[in-house]
Amino acid sequence: MKIAVIGGGAMGSLYGGLLSQNNDVVIVVVNRDQAEKVNREGLLIHEADGSQRLCHPKMIVCTDALEPVDLVILFVKSMVSRAALAQNRTLIGPDTYVMTLQNGSGHETILSEFTDAEHVVIGTTQHNSAVLGLGEIRHAGSGITNIGCISGDIHRLEPIAEAFRKSGFETRCCPNVQELIWSKMFTNVSVSALTGVLEVPMGYITENPYAWTLCEALIREAVAVAEGEGLHFNADEKIAEVRAVCERNPSGITSICADIRNGRKTEVDTISGSVVAASHRNGVPAPTHELIVTLIHALEGRKSA
Amino acid sequence: MKIAVIGGGAMGSLYGGLLSQNNDVVIVVVNRDQAEKVNREGLLIHEADGSQRLCHPKMIVCTDALEPVDLVILFVKSMVSRAALAQNRTLIGPDTYVMTLQNGSGHETILSEFTDAEHVVIGTTQHNSAVLGLGEIRHAGSGITNIGCISGDIHRLEPIAEAFRKSGFETRCCPNVQELIWSKMFTNVSVSALTGVLEVPMGYITENPYAWTLCEALIREAVAVAEGEGLHFNADEKIAEVRAVCERNPSGITSICADIRNGRKTEVDTISGSVVAASHRNGVPAPTHELIVTLIHALEGRKSA
Repeated sequence: MKIAVIGGGAMGSLYGGLLSQNNDVVIVVVNRDQAEKVNREGLLIHEADGSQRLCHPKMIVCTDALEPVDLVILFVKSMVSRAALAQNRTLIGPDTYVMTLQNGSGHETILSEFTDAEHVVIGTTQHNSAVLGLGEIRHAGSGITNIGCISGDIHRLEPIAEAFRKSGFETRCCPNVQELIWSKMFTNVSVSALTGVLEVPMGYITENPYAWTLCEALIREAVAVAEGEGLHFNADEKIAEVRAVCERNPSGITSICADIRNGRKTEVDTISGSVVAASHRNGVPAPTHELIVTLIHALEGRKSA
Repeated sequence: MKIAVIGGGAMGSLYGGLLSQNNDVVIVVVNRDQAEKVNREGLLIHEADGSQRLCHPKMIVCTDALEPVDLVILFVKSMVSRAALAQNRTLIGPDTYVMTLQNGSGHETILSEFTDAEHVVIGTTQHNSAVLGLGEIRHAGSGITNIGCISGDIHRLEPIAEAFRKSGFETRCCPNVQELIWSKMFTNVSVSALTGVLEVPMGYITENPYAWTLCEALIREAVAVAEGEGLHFNADEKIAEVRAVCERNPSGITSICADIRNGRKTEVDTISGSVVAASHRNGVPAPTHELIVTLIHALEGRKSA
């Protein structure tokens, strides 16, 4: 399969690297030094069991001269999704599937601007990866990759799933992929958002009674909005799951918190913001999420103030 | 007049100090060193015009042996109001007026636990003061002291006003004192609360569009709640006033922000919290204020986390 991964961060490198073992893969990056190093020496993946794997995806900075591929996988920060697809649209032909496994929901809206609904692939990943240096990543956690479509027959995705499996990704084609996406999102729209606003590690959310009150409110509100989307979740179950996530990793720093601390833009618009968007679409109110989104944007501007 | 000021911070020292020029004043403090120094050397007030004034209020730590006074003025942080009155209740007899000029609203609820409604005096002050050291303050700003009652004839307060005036405080007895209290509060419930949550100086609120959106929302919500209390304000006027306050002092740090930064408890419960209390009383919703109060309490706990 001809695959282009847009984004050479931790997750783009992981998927691009492993898929390159059995497919013709290019990874589109912005850092020329990274591209040169990987093209010369390969991409080194440190596995969780201590083993190392050297892969040879092709890294490129400019895709203008390229032909459309079979599959584009978008692995950039969600606030630059649209710009990244626009810049690399020569990769997308009438038969190209365009996939995202980014956190949050609602990415299909942007993907649909670049292809027809039948070629949009959305999903979730349980893999975890971290950048160690130029051309070097740590594959910190593994799990299932769930993919699905927003239109058309799910079986069309089977060849993609098969290509993923051959490269070591346990992959499922899911008719209920939106449910899986939302299910994964409850932690992000509660814990990630709140740890960002409060600038605290994950454990603080369950330890501080006021933070936990807000966390529960955010989960209940998101469950109600999901219900409005036709997706059924049990709020008490979700609350228990989120509590367990915090308790398992009390010193964990979410990416929204890290971004706020470092004066960077966050992905809040496709995380909490996607609950707000769904709320506007289906009329179920989400005032707490709206306020949190605005607060996080207000916090993002601080370093330049 | 026999007057007891409870609280020897910047404002308690200012009122106690100046009133001691023409009245029999004790200031109740918690710091023994402060009491000893002031009783020995007097209280030094640096005026804004560069002049200095030495006053001789009596500072005491324990009031158990004292008789009831004519007027008790409460000048402690609002979260310890109840405890401070309880500890010094021997000062309050059947004819003692109990006054507060603390920021925020709703203080009459606590005062009414210690005297009948006819002896509760509430109000606002435009004076400003800062502690420079033990027994030394800077009288940074002057203005009007407005006082009023929650029950009974306002003219009964005239002797108090007259005593204040003799000591240099321009003082008015106001039938509409709740309106003045709320009018002063709009800046606190918007700018003070937000600068606390965002940990930014006052100028940031008008400079950052997201912060300003939240600020406007808080003012409009508070104006609606005030309307529910029978107090009429024009939201656009209040928004313009609040904007001017921020623009006049862009580097100003509000006390809620300073408290959050230093890991201290804030006065949010009698500031934003008093909007929430009024909202619960009169049924006008104040969800943004409710959330801000909970967020600030969540932030207060951080240092110990």
